[in-house]
Amino acid sequence: MLVSCEGMDPAEWGRELAALCPDMEFLAARPDGSDLPDAETLTRVRYLVAWKPSQKVVSSLPALEAIFYMGAGVDHLLRLDVPDVPVVRSVDEDLTRQMTEYVVWQVLHHHRQAEAYRAAQAGRRWEPLDPISAPDVGIGILGLGVLGTDASEVLKRLGFHVMGWSRTPKVMPGLQTFSGEAGLAAMLPMTDILVSILPLTEETCGLLNRDLFATLRKDGPLGGPVLINAGRGGSQVDADIAAALRDGTLKGASLDVFETEPLPAESPLWDCPNLVITPHVAASSDAKALSRTIAGQINAHRNGEPLRNIVDVSRGY
Amino acid sequence: MLVSCEGMDPAEWGRELAALCPDMEFLAARPDGSDLPDAETLTRVRYLVAWKPSQKVVSSLPALEAIFYMGAGVDHLLRLDVPDVPVVRSVDEDLTRQMTEYVVWQVLHHHRQAEAYRAAQAGRRWEPLDPISAPDVGIGILGLGVLGTDASEVLKRLGFHVMGWSRTPKVMPGLQTFSGEAGLAAMLPMTDILVSILPLTEETCGLLNRDLFATLRKDGPLGGPVLINAGRGGSQVDADIAAALRDGTLKGASLDVFETEPLPAESPLWDCPNLVITPHVAASSDAKALSRTIAGQINAHRNGEPLRNIVDVSRGY
Ligand SMILES: NC(=O)c1ccc[n+]([C@@H]2O[C@H](COP(=O)([O-])OP(=O)(O)OC[C@H]3O[C@@H](n4cnc5c(N)ncnc54)[C@H](OP(=O)(O)O)[C@@H]3O)[C@@H](O)[C@H]2O)c1
Ligand SMILES: NC(=O)c1ccc[n+]([C@@H]2O[C@H](COP(=O)([O-])OP(=O)(O)OC[C@H]3O[C@@H](n4cnc5c(N)ncnc54)[C@H](OP(=O)(O)O)[C@@H]3O)[C@@H](O)[C@H]2O)c1
Repeated sequence: MLVSCEGMDPAEWGRELAALCPDMEFLAARPDGSDLPDAETLTRVRYLVAWKPSQKVVSSLPALEAIFYMGAGVDHLLRLDVPDVPVVRSVDEDLTRQMTEYVVWQVLHHHRQAEAYRAAQAGRRWEPLDPISAPDVGIGILGLGVLGTDASEVLKRLGFHVMGWSRTPKVMPGLQTFSGEAGLAAMLPMTDILVSILPLTEETCGLLNRDLFATLRKDGPLGGPVLINAGRGGSQVDADIAAALRDGTLKGASLDVFETEPLPAESPLWDCPNLVITPHVAASSDAKALSRTIAGQINAHRNGEPLRNIVDVSRGY
Repeated sequence: MLVSCEGMDPAEWGRELAALCPDMEFLAARPDGSDLPDAETLTRVRYLVAWKPSQKVVSSLPALEAIFYMGAGVDHLLRLDVPDVPVVRSVDEDLTRQMTEYVVWQVLHHHRQAEAYRAAQAGRRWEPLDPISAPDVGIGILGLGVLGTDASEVLKRLGFHVMGWSRTPKVMPGLQTFSGEAGLAAMLPMTDILVSILPLTEETCGLLNRDLFATLRKDGPLGGPVLINAGRGGSQVDADIAAALRDGTLKGASLDVFETEPLPAESPLWDCPNLVITPHVAASSDAKALSRTIAGQINAHRNGEPLRNIVDVSRGY
């Protein structure tokens, strides 16, 4: 097994994984491939556990049987020429829980008029506002996968009118579902808070742009539409969001992801009105939790059991 | 029926109620009793629908059969000499939903380190923080009534370690429950986020004070304990909270209620670090929703059916 990851400590992961797959040999390499073992050693590598590896790492493993990606979104990996082996992405209850927290937190931030109350507090003013009734608020979730589905459940429990959009049609209890381009066009005019938890693919690239914002519900109870993106920055047009917040097309936004990350200090987004910026932390992989999931899959595979959460490379997620 | 309420429009309530109890006579009066109808007319009043009425209003109704209070907490009413008739408080799904929203919103605000991310954003800094795992966070809910129970369910669904305290012992699935003084002393050292949704009674008056804060968990994952009070301001000592936030005994707080409301402009609370102030809006009675509930109870009572949500006057809630 070869562990190669950017921005995380491969030794920490190695220790966790080694403890859980005690009879396996471990190798580690920098994601740029600059310290790869010799070719002879690499012929023994059956599994690659990776986060943002380079083409060099991915192409030097002749006996590879599967890639375990240390993230839920595989867009970065699929930009490479990936060998024809199963690519398994990370699905983990800890990650799901974090994403649901983030979505609920930001929905309530806007729904409960946090910015207005903060401004009143700063001015030492006691200014009760009319409450907004959750059932009157339409929340449109883009992406009804593992993450979108879990978040939708808690939002429904809180009483919001929850809708969801996916590529293929779905039937989900208590949720108004839409699919395809026509479905999106039908959902957006009923949407007060648009929550994107989409993977980045050719089809979702640049989707969250000015034209789309203009079709969201304008006369809803929040006084204008709100955008929350916790999927991938490539699905949004940063400049369009900044402009829409400044001209009122969007009443507010919460962004965890950006076209360029880290978000450059000179980005016009930083000080947009009613925008909450977080640095790609909506849901972050906990080494312990994720190692358990990956080790479980590796051990199952070695016992001839099928892998779960395999990415459809042609589809892009 | 006599409608008498402070701060709300009795005409609006009268219209709603009249539509729902079409065969009843309606009267309205200022809560101070300055425009009460003549004594003869008042002998026909069987039901009082009120919010913060004066002693004069409450004492001038010889044929009164029940009081319907337009709020969930009856502390203000019970400070008066109340005639010996059932006092019905407001329990309403709209109110409950709002309170759960408020509690979840503020729990996530602190749990997700909102203040730190806001400061980073203001400085155009990309600064990811280590995530805090919900199951590691102990939430202690003071008051497991209608409101505390509903909030606890959503917090459990989000994965937090939820505990609750009530006067009488309770068994609730997935919740660690405590009661009485000894129970409180046992729960507090495990509590990272203390959420009070208690009624104001002799026993709960001044409960949230410096001595209590000192017993909360200090070495928890949030870096210090957090207080959220959405019950009644009389249960807290404002000055102790301000001091505890400034000296670090409390890491953060969210207050919707205060010893004096509106919170005076000179209060030291307004600019305490990591404190979220809202102006008693955690859950506010919607005239439409509440009228439906009250009218339903009045109509039931006239049909000889029992009243629900009767306050135990001797107990104080
Ligand atoms: N910000 C963060 O910290 C963070 C953390 C984790 C993950 N993420 C992002 O969240 C994404 C979603 O994760 P997941 O586990 O929920 O993925 P998933 O289970 O694969 O679900 C993806 C969902 O998106 C839908 N979808 C994909 N392409 C679409 C299209 N062209 N039109 C309409 N719907 C489309 C899919 O539709 P079908 O159901 O029809 O296939 C599916 O419902 C990841 O890809 C990752 O980029 C972000
Ligand atoms: N900020 C706002 O906007 C807002 C809005 C609505 C309500 N409120 C406040 O919220 C309060 C609670 O409402 P609710 O509908 O949940 O009331 P509830 O159903 O009567 O529940 C009260 C809970 O508090 C517990 N309790 C009372 N005295 C106690 C004591 N001395 N020690 C321990 N526990 C004690 C009760 O214990 P038992 O179960 O053992 O009886 C019960 O669990 C209201 O009284 C009101 O003051 C605030």
